[in-house]
Amino acid sequence: MTDFFPDIPSIPFEGSDSTNPLSFRHYDAEAVVEGRTMRDHLRFACAFWHTMRNDLSDPFGSGTAVMPWDDGSSSIENIERRINAFFEFLDKMSIDHYCFHDRDVAPEADTIDETNRILDQAVGILERRQDELGKQLLWGTACLFDHPRYVHGAATSTSVDVFAHAAGQVRRAIDATHHLGGAGYVFWGGREGYSSLINTDMPRERAQLARFLEMAVDYRRRIGFEGRFYIEPKPKEPTTHQYDFDVATCLNFLREFDLLDEFMLNIETNHATLAAHSMEHELRSAAAAGVLGSIDANMGHPHLGWDTDHFPTDLALAVRVMKVVLELDGLGQGGLNFDAKRRRGSFEPVDLFHAHIAGMDTFARGLKIAAAIRSDRRLDDAIQSRYRSWDSKLGDSIQSGQCTLEDLERHASQIGEPIMESGREEMLASIFNDFLR
Amino acid sequence: MTDFFPDIPSIPFEGSDSTNPLSFRHYDAEAVVEGRTMRDHLRFACAFWHTMRNDLSDPFGSGTAVMPWDDGSSSIENIERRINAFFEFLDKMSIDHYCFHDRDVAPEADTIDETNRILDQAVGILERRQDELGKQLLWGTACLFDHPRYVHGAATSTSVDVFAHAAGQVRRAIDATHHLGGAGYVFWGGREGYSSLINTDMPRERAQLARFLEMAVDYRRRIGFEGRFYIEPKPKEPTTHQYDFDVATCLNFLREFDLLDEFMLNIETNHATLAAHSMEHELRSAAAAGVLGSIDANMGHPHLGWDTDHFPTDLALAVRVMKVVLELDGLGQGGLNFDAKRRRGSFEPVDLFHAHIAGMDTFARGLKIAAAIRSDRRLDDAIQSRYRSWDSKLGDSIQSGQCTLEDLERHASQIGEPIMESGREEMLASIFNDFLR
Amino acid sequence: MTDFFPDIPSIPFEGSDSTNPLSFRHYDAEAVVEGRTMRDHLRFACAFWHTMRNDLSDPFGSGTAVMPWDDGSSSIENIERRINAFFEFLDKMSIDHYCFHDRDVAPEADTIDETNRILDQAVGILERRQDELGKQLLWGTACLFDHPRYVHGAATSTSVDVFAHAAGQVRRAIDATHHLGGAGYVFWGGREGYSSLINTDMPRERAQLARFLEMAVDYRRRIGFEGRFYIEPKPKEPTTHQYDFDVATCLNFLREFDLLDEFMLNIETNHATLAAHSMEHELRSAAAAGVLGSIDANMGHPHLGWDTDHFPTDLALAVRVMKVVLELDGLGQGGLNFDAKRRRGSFEPVDLFHAHIAGMDTFARGLKIAAAIRSDRRLDDAIQSRYRSWDSKLGDSIQSGQCTLEDLERHASQIGEPIMESGREEMLASIFNDFLR
Amino acid sequence: MTDFFPDIPSIPFEGSDSTNPLSFRHYDAEAVVEGRTMRDHLRFACAFWHTMRNDLSDPFGSGTAVMPWDDGSSSIENIERRINAFFEFLDKMSIDHYCFHDRDVAPEADTIDETNRILDQAVGILERRQDELGKQLLWGTACLFDHPRYVHGAATSTSVDVFAHAAGQVRRAIDATHHLGGAGYVFWGGREGYSSLINTDMPRERAQLARFLEMAVDYRRRIGFEGRFYIEPKPKEPTTHQYDFDVATCLNFLREFDLLDEFMLNIETNHATLAAHSMEHELRSAAAAGVLGSIDANMGHPHLGWDTDHFPTDLALAVRVMKVVLELDGLGQGGLNFDAKRRRGSFEPVDLFHAHIAGMDTFARGLKIAAAIRSDRRLDDAIQSRYRSWDSKLGDSIQSGQCTLEDLERHASQIGEPIMESGREEMLASIFNDFLR
Repeated sequence: MTDFFPDIPSIPFEGSDSTNPLSFRHYDAEAVVEGRTMRDHLRFACAFWHTMRNDLSDPFGSGTAVMPWDDGSSSIENIERRINAFFEFLDKMSIDHYCFHDRDVAPEADTIDETNRILDQAVGILERRQDELGKQLLWGTACLFDHPRYVHGAATSTSVDVFAHAAGQVRRAIDATHHLGGAGYVFWGGREGYSSLINTDMPRERAQLARFLEMAVDYRRRIGFEGRFYIEPKPKEPTTHQYDFDVATCLNFLREFDLLDEFMLNIETNHATLAAHSMEHELRSAAAAGVLGSIDANMGHPHLGWDTDHFPTDLALAVRVMKVVLELDGLGQGGLNFDAKRRRGSFEPVDLFHAHIAGMDTFARGLKIAAAIRSDRRLDDAIQSRYRSWDSKLGDSIQSGQCTLEDLERHASQIGEPIMESGREEMLASIFNDFLR
Repeated sequence: MTDFFPDIPSIPFEGSDSTNPLSFRHYDAEAVVEGRTMRDHLRFACAFWHTMRNDLSDPFGSGTAVMPWDDGSSSIENIERRINAFFEFLDKMSIDHYCFHDRDVAPEADTIDETNRILDQAVGILERRQDELGKQLLWGTACLFDHPRYVHGAATSTSVDVFAHAAGQVRRAIDATHHLGGAGYVFWGGREGYSSLINTDMPRERAQLARFLEMAVDYRRRIGFEGRFYIEPKPKEPTTHQYDFDVATCLNFLREFDLLDEFMLNIETNHATLAAHSMEHELRSAAAAGVLGSIDANMGHPHLGWDTDHFPTDLALAVRVMKVVLELDGLGQGGLNFDAKRRRGSFEPVDLFHAHIAGMDTFARGLKIAAAIRSDRRLDDAIQSRYRSWDSKLGDSIQSGQCTLEDLERHASQIGEPIMESGREEMLASIFNDFLR
Repeated sequence: MTDFFPDIPSIPFEGSDSTNPLSFRHYDAEAVVEGRTMRDHLRFACAFWHTMRNDLSDPFGSGTAVMPWDDGSSSIENIERRINAFFEFLDKMSIDHYCFHDRDVAPEADTIDETNRILDQAVGILERRQDELGKQLLWGTACLFDHPRYVHGAATSTSVDVFAHAAGQVRRAIDATHHLGGAGYVFWGGREGYSSLINTDMPRERAQLARFLEMAVDYRRRIGFEGRFYIEPKPKEPTTHQYDFDVATCLNFLREFDLLDEFMLNIETNHATLAAHSMEHELRSAAAAGVLGSIDANMGHPHLGWDTDHFPTDLALAVRVMKVVLELDGLGQGGLNFDAKRRRGSFEPVDLFHAHIAGMDTFARGLKIAAAIRSDRRLDDAIQSRYRSWDSKLGDSIQSGQCTLEDLERHASQIGEPIMESGREEMLASIFNDFLR
Repeated sequence: MTDFFPDIPSIPFEGSDSTNPLSFRHYDAEAVVEGRTMRDHLRFACAFWHTMRNDLSDPFGSGTAVMPWDDGSSSIENIERRINAFFEFLDKMSIDHYCFHDRDVAPEADTIDETNRILDQAVGILERRQDELGKQLLWGTACLFDHPRYVHGAATSTSVDVFAHAAGQVRRAIDATHHLGGAGYVFWGGREGYSSLINTDMPRERAQLARFLEMAVDYRRRIGFEGRFYIEPKPKEPTTHQYDFDVATCLNFLREFDLLDEFMLNIETNHATLAAHSMEHELRSAAAAGVLGSIDANMGHPHLGWDTDHFPTDLALAVRVMKVVLELDGLGQGGLNFDAKRRRGSFEPVDLFHAHIAGMDTFARGLKIAAAIRSDRRLDDAIQSRYRSWDSKLGDSIQSGQCTLEDLERHASQIGEPIMESGREEMLASIFNDFLR
């Protein structure tokens, strides 16, 4: 076993009274909730890009992260050290899954062939480590936004040659994901959007994007990749307007181009809130359409207008997320990926542990509380009861399409003013709060 | 002719050097632009609710508007005076179209029958006045949000009886619109949304809404109403989350419930910006999907988070709107409805004139400038030229679906690094500005 | 005793396991925390305007609130019934304090004299009821924003006559507050701001406001009113820009016009967040300047851009607020006023109870948790320890003004690169969460 | 003369009908407006950091800017080439002033002494070039935010040693500015703010910042630097909350620590809008307090929540800015610094020219239009006239402090209801628009 975090032990579960910051107070992997272990419910994943490659630089400053294992080079030795440190981290944290971008593990070289060769080597290292430690790739993806060639987008580039480059890169990233037994592959929008409409043909670019995804679907079929394909809503940043703005926009796009059977959604909290939705709204919208596939578990800051990717420490939020997941009977092949980064001031290696503990404990509590709310049933019953007037002959007749406006006008005229009932929003919020303990 | 605005003459066109505030400096109804009169391009409409019924109250204060013609009662005499004042206003302003809510002209009475009787009378008065003055109803609608019974929504109410009331009301509003020869009918979302997910079954409510719209489509067919049906995107207010959030959300809804052939969109600037989109984005999104039907021409304030319904005085915005309209070869049966209200401090009757002049002149300039930009072609050519690499054998092969990821990878490998070109955003913005004169 | 809420008993404390929604699960008035009863720490107040006069209308709809005690008239009998219902509510809720606007209890009549006569009568009724039930007026205020005469502001009106009206009204409101033994008087900005700079002389209006406040200070001295004077930060709504934008803006104003010794601040959560600050930021800013006087305990919605005045049910927020209050050793004469309204859908009388229970229980838990955090000391110690390098000769020399840039340059050159420490933000957030139970 | 932009000539003024994108259509340096040349009114400055050092990278991607003169090294030859390219750019653009950060021209070396030696060399090169070409330093500053040591702030760092480093760096940056005859020195907040209050002692940090500024004032006195000292409001980014939030916050800080006589403000449009203010509001607030010193002329995007630093192309905005500047009789030693960057897609060297032309032409038009509005007087007269009731005996008596609340109540009672006048906001907006040509 490697030892890049020599002073940090495997993180134990110590229970809610522990004051040891390097312990789980709530995440007890084998504890059973609603007939399944926490491990199986939560399917935590760690993101290689944030945990290993994010140096905590920001638009106003150089990186601060202390990474003694990283010499900054693109040598295969350095690549291997990063991977080894990553798996040591996963192991000590009891995190079962991971996610990665192709360029995270294989920086771009001078030629495509050389880049692909390095990628193959990196994939080999990943494979060995995941097999040794029993870890699984939750999803892979391609980085189609960092390189200057993608300045005007990848699939939506003004240049057909850039589209071709992106296509080749995605092919290799799907191959890598397939080889590693990945449970999914994410097409995050990256720079698929526009900076300004003054120089953009939006319908053309959306059609290019659809064509690109169709080719990927065709490829998946041919190679027999069984993982899910995801697209990921995000409203803005880096572009002014991302084509995958939110869940509804993604659904509209998938319906328009007849791709709804081929893709599910990977939904991120901070993207939801940047689009002025609650995370619960986005999750329920996707779940209702049958496309809630996986979750990027982070959060934003209510007063900051950019993607802050905070670690998720909002307990009420975690309850709401886990309640949707439990109602769905789990995310299946999906999981909870911490697409989250430490604050720039948390630059020591141990802060990686603190940050992930914070997120995991928050979601473990969220799971337990969501299960308690479901078991109690007061909140779910309150919703159902509100619509009970629809469980009637009239309701049936409307829902089955056997009613006209005239029929209903007649009914209204007969009954006169309907008797209205309070929605009891504050009472329900208070009951919800009673479970936060 | 009535005379509710005795000191105000019909507003003349006096040209851009006039300093007479009660003149048009730009809107010259019969002036021809791109082969059509300004009147025909712009199809201005005035909203009865803002112009006649908005007393400029706000959540912190009583109404300030001075309306000498209105005694505050629901008597038929008062209803007639309001309508007469309205048409005098349209006439003096050379505005050809109008829009109204049923409850604007016929306040709710004690029984449905009585309410409908008053509505019929009001429609008779509207009919006489529009025929006398040659005005046209751009669209009608029903007010499904003011009455306490609609507190939990109308079509999306928890109560089936409220749904029935709404159905009856809509039937009568469609009848009224049909009778008046209206060019369209709008289903604005009103309270179709939720205050909180803690007491809401969102999928159920969306299905109710779809069923409601299907019944209206069925009714339209049966009575032979030829006007367009519109839904109107709005993200929030009065509810926390409106189901018709934005254009993409509306499109997704229409596709999901197979209603895309039956509805177009009525798009409002202030709703677009509350949803964090530019108006141009929303218009182009709708136009590309073939559903850009009509426009609510107002604007919001960039630092205020509610629907302020300012009169549109942003010249660059008007240029962008009119450029989309010209590209579409006009809005057809649709038009530009000033869904705008004076600020609370502009409470004198003459301010109605000032406000509409401001909006009409802004859009008249917008029209002229948009036509000049189109004639010049530099901006359109710049966009088209950016995608010219797609006009190639490779581009064709991709677009026609004859290419695989592997083919493209081969191509990318052969050509090496693509040559990139600047998007020239600042240069194009500067050229755009040169037209603002 | 009156009986306007006949089916609702006095709300008992039943402890955290109770499922009775009409019970306190956390607010136990006589329970002692840090040596003082909950009652004394929290000093809850109920707002007459929201609880008795808010009919839950909004800009899109008529009122929904069921208020059987209110016939809608301005008769003295109706005024008395409202007051009686209010005090019955306070009594059953064990709320010790209340706040009111002059026009809440005494609607404006035809003449100033008549209005003042009604106000005197209403004050007499308030006095009797508060004395009977042992309730106290936390603060009074004047409604300088509802009447059309205040359309352009009150103290900042363009009209000197409106300024005079406002002055007279404030005089009477201060008298009423003084007579009732009020612990404070609030000058909320109302319409003191602007709709647009295009017709506003901002420096002139700010000077008018200062003069107005000086006159009130002079008046307070003369009549011997011992209550605190508060101004209340709010960034916008109803005006586009309120002159009392946030805490810093208020402090700047008070310093500029030499009023800092005369006023404290009444800080509202929803106003803080509309100004893009956290409530904790505003509280700490005011506390550091010695002007944290009282709190309007509500909350907004992160995705809505207007003043929603939700009842406060965010537990973490309540902890942060109460921690500041405990550090200050209490608010003195100030208190926690629920400037909060039920959602429009919660229109039944019992919802007033549910809503206030939700807020009171949230703050009671906030108090207990804040005290536990203080007793534990880990979080406070972490902050203090971060600055320990300043507890040094160099730190002293800087703080006492005995150091120059050159001295420090020399020091920097000698020590070389400073050793940096992580800020541990995620670890501390996780510890904070551990207390939320 | 160097030749880094060989294909680009000096930009000529060609008048408003020119279609040459590499010409000024409005900026005619020697044209006279209100008795002064455009050059003297506008005092344009170019920012070294954006124009020479910004590679157009963003949080999601590597730099795209093509900079053939820059080999990426910190060699003195490379530093000189950057400076030479910069001055060639200034010369061809007819921009008279520039601004720079110390680290722009002198990247940090291994030791403080070595860094300072490189800075001295760079300053020598700047001095030669500015003297040869007749350019002036508008202001200098120190980069106290890029280096990891400033992760927790500079003057507000938790570490006294970091404070010392910052002090030494500022001393040298002031020296460099003084040596170059700079007209000002800016203390932009950088990381002076907090990421979270959970680990921050805000009052302590604000006091540190004040102490730091006092030391700089003391130093300025001792060396006889005559340039202005500026602080620069910004609400957030990079920190969650910057201590210099907005103009009012800066004024409050300067008053609290008795620094108001020593500092003016450098106000940036994009910072104003991120703080939810209009730029005009911030400018007028500063002007009224006598501290409007200089302007960072850029703009943001209304739907993006971060500092986008767009080049300013909003004509109405430029009119409003220049109207304030004309009312102030100019900015004195201050100027209009384009703290603006090209979009990432505008990566060619010629885009630097396009972008600055766009900004300069916009402000030249803004100047001409603002002067026309002032000469016309309709808008200014409208404001003044609104307050005319204050030009009365009663108004004088109030303003001079000889009136009591009782006096005013008597007056109000005598006059009865005041006669109210419309604020005419829409009419004035329409007149404003008439000037946009």
